Amino acid sequence: MSDKVTALDLPMVDPLPEETRQYFDLCEDKLGMVPNVLKAYAFDIDKLNAFSALYNDLMLAESGLSKLEREMIAVVVSAVNHCWYCLVAHGAAVRALSGDPKLGEAMAMNWRAVALSDRHRAMLAFAEKLTEAPSKMDEADRQALRDAGFSDRDIWDIANVAGFFNMTNRVAAATDMQPNDAYHSQAR
Amino acid sequence: MSDKVTALDLPMVDPLPEETRQYFDLCEDKLGMVPNVLKAYAFDIDKLNAFSALYNDLMLAESGLSKLEREMIAVVVSAVNHCWYCLVAHGAAVRALSGDPKLGEAMAMNWRAVALSDRHRAMLAFAEKLTEAPSKMDEADRQALRDAGFSDRDIWDIANVAGFFNMTNRVAAATDMQPNDAYHSQAR
Amino acid sequence: MSDKVTALDLPMVDPLPEETRQYFDLCEDKLGMVPNVLKAYAFDIDKLNAFSALYNDLMLAESGLSKLEREMIAVVVSAVNHCWYCLVAHGAAVRALSGDPKLGEAMAMNWRAVALSDRHRAMLAFAEKLTEAPSKMDEADRQALRDAGFSDRDIWDIANVAGFFNMTNRVAAATDMQPNDAYHSQAR
Amino acid sequence: MSDKVTALDLPMVDPLPEETRQYFDLCEDKLGMVPNVLKAYAFDIDKLNAFSALYNDLMLAESGLSKLEREMIAVVVSAVNHCWYCLVAHGAAVRALSGDPKLGEAMAMNWRAVALSDRHRAMLAFAEKLTEAPSKMDEADRQALRDAGFSDRDIWDIANVAGFFNMTNRVAAATDMQPNDAYHSQAR
Amino acid sequence: MSDKVTALDLPMVDPLPEETRQYFDLCEDKLGMVPNVLKAYAFDIDKLNAFSALYNDLMLAESGLSKLEREMIAVVVSAVNHCWYCLVAHGAAVRALSGDPKLGEAMAMNWRAVALSDRHRAMLAFAEKLTEAPSKMDEADRQALRDAGFSDRDIWDIANVAGFFNMTNRVAAATDMQPNDAYHSQAR
Amino acid sequence: MSDKVTALDLPMVDPLPEETRQYFDLCEDKLGMVPNVLKAYAFDIDKLNAFSALYNDLMLAESGLSKLEREMIAVVVSAVNHCWYCLVAHGAAVRALSGDPKLGEAMAMNWRAVALSDRHRAMLAFAEKLTEAPSKMDEADRQALRDAGFSDRDIWDIANVAGFFNMTNRVAAATDMQPNDAYHSQAR
Repeated sequence: MSDKVTALDLPMVDPLPEETRQYFDLCEDKLGMVPNVLKAYAFDIDKLNAFSALYNDLMLAESGLSKLEREMIAVVVSAVNHCWYCLVAHGAAVRALSGDPKLGEAMAMNWRAVALSDRHRAMLAFAEKLTEAPSKMDEADRQALRDAGFSDRDIWDIANVAGFFNMTNRVAAATDMQPNDAYHSQAR
Repeated sequence: MSDKVTALDLPMVDPLPEETRQYFDLCEDKLGMVPNVLKAYAFDIDKLNAFSALYNDLMLAESGLSKLEREMIAVVVSAVNHCWYCLVAHGAAVRALSGDPKLGEAMAMNWRAVALSDRHRAMLAFAEKLTEAPSKMDEADRQALRDAGFSDRDIWDIANVAGFFNMTNRVAAATDMQPNDAYHSQAR
Repeated sequence: MSDKVTALDLPMVDPLPEETRQYFDLCEDKLGMVPNVLKAYAFDIDKLNAFSALYNDLMLAESGLSKLEREMIAVVVSAVNHCWYCLVAHGAAVRALSGDPKLGEAMAMNWRAVALSDRHRAMLAFAEKLTEAPSKMDEADRQALRDAGFSDRDIWDIANVAGFFNMTNRVAAATDMQPNDAYHSQAR
Repeated sequence: MSDKVTALDLPMVDPLPEETRQYFDLCEDKLGMVPNVLKAYAFDIDKLNAFSALYNDLMLAESGLSKLEREMIAVVVSAVNHCWYCLVAHGAAVRALSGDPKLGEAMAMNWRAVALSDRHRAMLAFAEKLTEAPSKMDEADRQALRDAGFSDRDIWDIANVAGFFNMTNRVAAATDMQPNDAYHSQAR
Repeated sequence: MSDKVTALDLPMVDPLPEETRQYFDLCEDKLGMVPNVLKAYAFDIDKLNAFSALYNDLMLAESGLSKLEREMIAVVVSAVNHCWYCLVAHGAAVRALSGDPKLGEAMAMNWRAVALSDRHRAMLAFAEKLTEAPSKMDEADRQALRDAGFSDRDIWDIANVAGFFNMTNRVAAATDMQPNDAYHSQAR
Repeated sequence: MSDKVTALDLPMVDPLPEETRQYFDLCEDKLGMVPNVLKAYAFDIDKLNAFSALYNDLMLAESGLSKLEREMIAVVVSAVNHCWYCLVAHGAAVRALSGDPKLGEAMAMNWRAVALSDRHRAMLAFAEKLTEAPSKMDEADRQALRDAGFSDRDIWDIANVAGFFNMTNRVAAATDMQPNDAYHSQAR
């Protein structure tokens, strides 16, 4: 198995530490693959762990946002940035979590083009503006989220998920990170 | 002491866990303040810890990039995004680490306007393009870094530092995060 | 069967003229559907015919560009413009014509992220610049295509296919045109 | 007579088919010239016919938009795209149809700078946004046209005329198409 | 004679001071009109004089750039900014000074679309970039001017003329300044 | 004393005329320095005088805008354009005139990020839009200023100060003009 998933010559630690090996085995069991982003970070286990911990807190921990909503934000941010890796991987997640292949496509292509709840339109409009024009955010943007029923804690989570994918989109773009091929056919 | 450092109503956990209290005390000792970004995350200790761990790995761990270089990237990314919090806090860091107040100002205002080594111009041009147009990155951009003497591991670090501040810039913008006033007069 | 495929209240001519009905039947036979764009134009048969004639000449007539190449241009232009209709319909065409689902995804998400021939990179770079910054085109852009092996006639065809989708992307966006659901699962 | 009106070496079919020759003669009679765009397409009569048919349907057929209004849209779209050919040719058309040379100039330079009816401001604002940011169109944009008195059929026509010139602007830019000199002094 | 040439209610000083009256009479004699920009500033004679002095130095004093070249820069800058007033007034100046109506149109519409000397292409490319992306100017841009035969003094003049019209374009846009109608038919 | 303050080889007139020498002496007395911009223009005394006269009228003459407000506009415009010279020099002016170092930093980094009066937010929003998108200014923008209490004369002054720094930002960028080092530590 080649572990070269970016344009950089940064091979995985070999052998992987026991804890990492178990984490990767768990991924194989649950997802049927080790996501390439994890392999990319695995040249340095501290970096892998720091990245994974933040990812897991943002995307999987308790939140007023459902996991699907967090994935929708991920994909809409990645669509603005045209991020190959994140559109492929998280587009598949939206399809899988929603059971609605069309929704995944719409998040990746143009969220304005499909019918969404007011809650979701407000959430995605905020994430999109934050991605495109962060310097122009102001109180009216936060108020629009509150008016759509989001709490201040929810606003924090929207901001942090949108922020996180603005990070990963750029890490992927800078390194030419390639998503696992298996995503393409998932949940179609 | 008010701990309201954003526009969101998310008070710090009270009392703070022992470990967090020690971390904040350490900040007071070493920096003369607890950076407001830490207070902002302290409504949820897991989030604070995940954020801090990634930050510390990126900005403080071993790297082919000096700490000053990582702060220069931080400020140049934040200049593109006009991020109030990060320009103030990390502009101060550039001034302090370099002992060159003018350098800190130049990173925050326009890095092209001052004399820099070829290494630093290549590094900052990469970080700037990655921030402004991530979808346009390609092999030529990585090669320009290699030509300036950076290793693939260095490229990873440039990408991740630039990515990280594209995240924090947006978290700060979305929440109206305010930097500690003390930064303004530091290392002038 | 509802024929409302846009946000505009413009029902199809009823009954359709014989020639149109035969054309739609032919679509059903060959594609398994009548593409919604044809239904959208069918409120006025002259408009439908003028649109179809131009489309068929550009996408199906003799050309130095293969049909797949023309579809690749269609999708890359539509990715710049985030056109829901065209990304769905022509993304499916790239998948089907190439037998390579990943290629279709890459055209819709970021053509720079996958390995392509020099010919295809030159072709798509031209189409992308023409879409994003038409006023900046100059002789160097044409020469880059010639250097990649394209004839002047090929350049004409690249320009016209790219131009055409800059038209249809805007017609679709302006009218909220919805693609047939069947595209989503095709050639995955 | 040289028929080289673009940077591409694509001479007109010689001799022209009878039908085309008659069409060009008609142009000479009515316009005092054969518009160079027609000569440019005349290397392939099928392409010329498909282009002309669509053009004639959009710009000359029955519509809730006057011919002048369609020309105003053409010029405003071309101003966004800085299209030399279309600004020259259709700027002249606005001057001629309106009998108001200043109106033609204003459409080519900045439609916001002159007094226009609410109907025309709404129409041109829609065409401008559709040209600059097609992915951001939504129902509010269509409603603004309805509020200004446009029917759904009129919206279709605005969208298609604006779309068409986004196509021709790019064909002209990609090929360096030169307008007939005679336009410059017309209707001044 | 109405002197309201902007959207602001700022009438000219009445009566005008003798020196101003003579200046305006001179304009009438030489140009056949008092340019509206002068009337706009004439609500405050100090402002009028300061503006005129800078204008006259830049556009009329000795320079390595011909008066026509300075007007070409003026129009190209104004085209980027879509400035109604300056395109009309200085477009007429290019037509008049060059005796080439087409050249005036090309500067206002797209300077890339017409054949120009290498000197003029370099000059206009510099002025355009300086207008669109001043923060990205660097030594290579100055060197390109030197390579095209410009002296450092010429570079100063190009920069200052381009800068000046970036000022006046904005004053005109902010105040809805209307050019004299007489320009439209001049030198056609 | 070296007087090379730009990348251009344009030495100051030597000796300076008496009047200029006195002006520079006055600067030394009042500011503790001769601002480099004056030295840059001093290769041609007519140009220096024309520039200074306009600057002094705009920034120092009677106005409904306070000197601090005019400096705030200067810095906000310069922040959009990332102008090294003007951010350094006029950032210092805001700090000095306001006695509020943080305000100077905020104008240079992101005016939206700090608490300002409605008057100041309206003033800076106008200046920012005028800088970024002059072609989109319309009556609603002027009305927003009137609603915030500005007179038409005030609007003129806002437009002209914003316009002026759009000029000087570009002159500085084009020539790599370097601000006096002394500004960096002033009024911190």
